[in-house]
Amino acid sequence: MKSFVEYSDNSDFPIQNLPYGIFTTPENLKKRIGVAIGNEILDLSAIAHLFTGPLLNSKQDVFCKEYLNDFMSLGRPSWIEARQTLQSLLSTDNQTLQQTDLRSKVLVPQVKATMHLPARIGDYTDFYSSIHHATNIGIMFRNKENALMPNWKYLPVGYHGRASSIVISGTPIRRARGQTLPVEEAPPIYGPSRLMDFELEVAFFVGGPPTKLGDTVVASRAEEHIFGLVTMNDWSARDIQKWEYVPLGPFGAKNLGTTISPWIITLEALEAFKVPSMPQDPIPFPYLRYDNPYTFDIELEVDLKTANGVVTTITRSNYKYLYWSAQQQLAHHTVTGCNINPGDLMASGTISGEMADSYGSMLELSWKGTKPIQLKDGSARKFLQDGDEIIIKGYCSGNGYRIGFGRCSGKLLPAHTV
Amino acid sequence: MKSFVEYSDNSDFPIQNLPYGIFTTPENLKKRIGVAIGNEILDLSAIAHLFTGPLLNSKQDVFCKEYLNDFMSLGRPSWIEARQTLQSLLSTDNQTLQQTDLRSKVLVPQVKATMHLPARIGDYTDFYSSIHHATNIGIMFRNKENALMPNWKYLPVGYHGRASSIVISGTPIRRARGQTLPVEEAPPIYGPSRLMDFELEVAFFVGGPPTKLGDTVVASRAEEHIFGLVTMNDWSARDIQKWEYVPLGPFGAKNLGTTISPWIITLEALEAFKVPSMPQDPIPFPYLRYDNPYTFDIELEVDLKTANGVVTTITRSNYKYLYWSAQQQLAHHTVTGCNINPGDLMASGTISGEMADSYGSMLELSWKGTKPIQLKDGSARKFLQDGDEIIIKGYCSGNGYRIGFGRCSGKLLPAHTV
Repeated sequence: MKSFVEYSDNSDFPIQNLPYGIFTTPENLKKRIGVAIGNEILDLSAIAHLFTGPLLNSKQDVFCKEYLNDFMSLGRPSWIEARQTLQSLLSTDNQTLQQTDLRSKVLVPQVKATMHLPARIGDYTDFYSSIHHATNIGIMFRNKENALMPNWKYLPVGYHGRASSIVISGTPIRRARGQTLPVEEAPPIYGPSRLMDFELEVAFFVGGPPTKLGDTVVASRAEEHIFGLVTMNDWSARDIQKWEYVPLGPFGAKNLGTTISPWIITLEALEAFKVPSMPQDPIPFPYLRYDNPYTFDIELEVDLKTANGVVTTITRSNYKYLYWSAQQQLAHHTVTGCNINPGDLMASGTISGEMADSYGSMLELSWKGTKPIQLKDGSARKFLQDGDEIIIKGYCSGNGYRIGFGRCSGKLLPAHTV
Repeated sequence: MKSFVEYSDNSDFPIQNLPYGIFTTPENLKKRIGVAIGNEILDLSAIAHLFTGPLLNSKQDVFCKEYLNDFMSLGRPSWIEARQTLQSLLSTDNQTLQQTDLRSKVLVPQVKATMHLPARIGDYTDFYSSIHHATNIGIMFRNKENALMPNWKYLPVGYHGRASSIVISGTPIRRARGQTLPVEEAPPIYGPSRLMDFELEVAFFVGGPPTKLGDTVVASRAEEHIFGLVTMNDWSARDIQKWEYVPLGPFGAKNLGTTISPWIITLEALEAFKVPSMPQDPIPFPYLRYDNPYTFDIELEVDLKTANGVVTTITRSNYKYLYWSAQQQLAHHTVTGCNINPGDLMASGTISGEMADSYGSMLELSWKGTKPIQLKDGSARKFLQDGDEIIIKGYCSGNGYRIGFGRCSGKLLPAHTV
């Protein structure tokens, strides 16, 4: 499969990828749906009339919306048909878009575009599905013998997050202020967080028609409701989190901002990178079971760029390290009857590998601040400093091409002074 | 102040109330904004052109929307102007709406109308602000000496809830299925919850323009962002909650459904029922302080109606029993920089009084199932049975009129069998 749009072998966005996003350009400030191809964006609002397959012929208006929710709601058969149409339109064999005047209208250089949130996110949920992460946190805050809570291997623990504070890659994040308890027996104090952290995560967007309150989507049917994946940085103020989180969970320590990458990578693009899921013991309850449980081999990297511009890769992890899969997360989310809607976002939780250089947060990498992380400019970090930028990258490679997630980045601004 | 619409002295909706809701009628299935007056609803979409005050004259379109969010976004001066216009239009002195042909077009009997969610709820947050409730739970699950967690008197503890599962009064709620741990040292089991409960709460809708990520609305400015109040039943599956909630808080035990009353009572209507807030010790941090801290004297009642139709009032509580006020909840919600939007919903948490007949949940009323609650039909309850209906009522009275919240009701359906 070859596209008439040229790109290098290590492009994040070959014709095998075709991720969806929302963009504007200086010439056209209306938000519209685009598909990344090489260094360009195919403007679907300009070619909506070319989706003439049996399922999409009467649904072309979904490609002219300011968000992907309507397209997401159509379900997998429609998503597959859209992908086939796009691969055909972008292939060297197809002349439709290659005419000079049309090409310049429907293909926009990515450097000229501003990306926006791809969906109206109705609800956002964050899971806690990495066994290495949960174990690390358990060892740090309890002890090795009771590192995992008794429920952890029976259900994918998760909690509701704040949808309004999800922002697109590139948005600066402000250091939080709030209450912390630096001295255990003394009263709490108020001020800027001293322990700002990132969390390396991957999230999926829910697709398919809305479900009804009271209904459950079991794991064996969950794939019908998974549209695609993005990378995520769940910024965290660890000292605020520690003081606030009992007994109802993290709150203000997390709702200061959560960054996602702008391009949604579809399950179809990831298909070639399926690998078996981590074995589970005990065997999960039937609602959490499905045939040939799989996950994806997605390499993940976190770069820390200091204010002087020096970049250090501080961790390398992989989506396949998750104990609970996206299907199981979605099944557990709905087991008690919670309804879900296209555009909902469900995140993995911090993805840590087994080794110390694959941990997904500063808290783990610096082991609670006891092992400073050395950076290439000679400085070191226990937690984030103002001006630090965190850049998350994700990609699958092999088969002669690369399915990339683009960048999920954000720079930490100083706390407000008042 | 007297309206040409007739109603009894104990009507929930006199001309001093004028709460906002969204309704449809069999003749007109378009959702529109209404104001309750006596037993009728004034259809604002039909009289939008009569909002000719200086602030609303150019914003009349907000009254023609399917949700209240746009009106909510305008802020308090506009809300006050709308109230003045409505009180004038509904008064005996004003002939405008009293013409027979117009009256029948703009006023609809409430019995003919179906009510809907009043706003698109972007995000929903649930606090834990009743000191008696938090103390009861602490005694039951820990001990009397450590009933309140160390953070409880320093900050209004809260967590993010599930916006999609909020439903309007009258919607049936299905008993949840999920994992529970009936025997401490044995593995968990899967099945219908055996401990279904209600939670008596009051929630406020956020108004005013959206705030920016990174900004804080301190308590002294919070009133600008509080549009009005509804009553709420935060249905809870206690056995599922107990197993799932460590360490990230309640999740599936709560997202099975949350019921709200359909009419939003404005702060202007509640003004005459202001009372001083509960004294706070320690003195809160400055961001949580404001002059003359007040709350509202809102009587709350919960009726349990069994399948045979017999109604028992099982508790009487009051909004004024909250330790943390709505202003403080909002300030704490935004202290770390969380942005808020008109239409967001923030709930109080279960409101329990000090006395055993004023507790806001079955868990407390039956003291963990040890003291069955006697009902008028001769039966008793530790927790809810299938077919039970919970009806929450709220009202302020005095001054010769009553500011009522209408009903917040829902019937418990049996769990799905699969």
